[in-house]
Amino acid sequence: MNDCIFCKICKGEIPCNKIYEDKNTLAFLDINPATDKGGHTLVMPKKHYELITDIPEAELKELVKVIQKISKVLLKLYPGLNILQNNKRIAGQVIPHLHFHLIPRYDNDGIKIDYWETHKYGQEEDIKLAKKIKTLLK
Amino acid sequence: MNDCIFCKICKGEIPCNKIYEDKNTLAFLDINPATDKGGHTLVMPKKHYELITDIPEAELKELVKVIQKISKVLLKLYPGLNILQNNKRIAGQVIPHLHFHLIPRYDNDGIKIDYWETHKYGQEEDIKLAKKIKTLLK
Repeated sequence: MNDCIFCKICKGEIPCNKIYEDKNTLAFLDINPATDKGGHTLVMPKKHYELITDIPEAELKELVKVIQKISKVLLKLYPGLNILQNNKRIAGQVIPHLHFHLIPRYDNDGIKIDYWETHKYGQEEDIKLAKKIKTLLK
Repeated sequence: MNDCIFCKICKGEIPCNKIYEDKNTLAFLDINPATDKGGHTLVMPKKHYELITDIPEAELKELVKVIQKISKVLLKLYPGLNILQNNKRIAGQVIPHLHFHLIPRYDNDGIKIDYWETHKYGQEEDIKLAKKIKTLLK
């Protein structure tokens, strides 16, 4: 897409700190890392898709292969790692070009990605919801 | 693993609100959803692996296929979705059995998974780090 900053980075029109590239995939350091020690990496298909549900299955499988490869390196450099992919602005997707955040974790990093308040389902609410999702999956 | 709660759920020894199952993969509703409207789903390989880096590539590819399939349904039911996978306790991995959180997002859900303070790299710090990661990737 013409106005997509990640498409421009993928085409080399905007520079990045590239860490991996193949025909279909690009990975580079996030310019504004969540981590004060850096290493926050973005992995994305070069082709423009917005959501996890938009990319063809075969391309997603190739993407996850690269995510695993880079995760191996990040887990050599840092003691923990979050992999996060946001779909839609309401979920924190700032750039509508499918991308995975690989966020290194370590002591006193101040990151709360993995923290949330938990809730309880009302009586049979979970059973009804599971049934609804199962029906839609068919 | 004998003392792994997710292994026990995968074997049917502990009940769950199952939404998907095939030979290698299980998905069910998190008993303590991050969302007050529910729908928070866990997707995992039945076989015990701890980290994203431990599962064989072929099995990870099959897992991501299921994640995409369930994401399609969740994005029909909710306006947004976070996909999160935590590696190691320091990154919020409570159960050391590889799993992906699929967390529906909607207005006023109070979830801050996608929010973090950003940082800046010092001079050439990002270039040096990208070089280091690239070297380790080879």
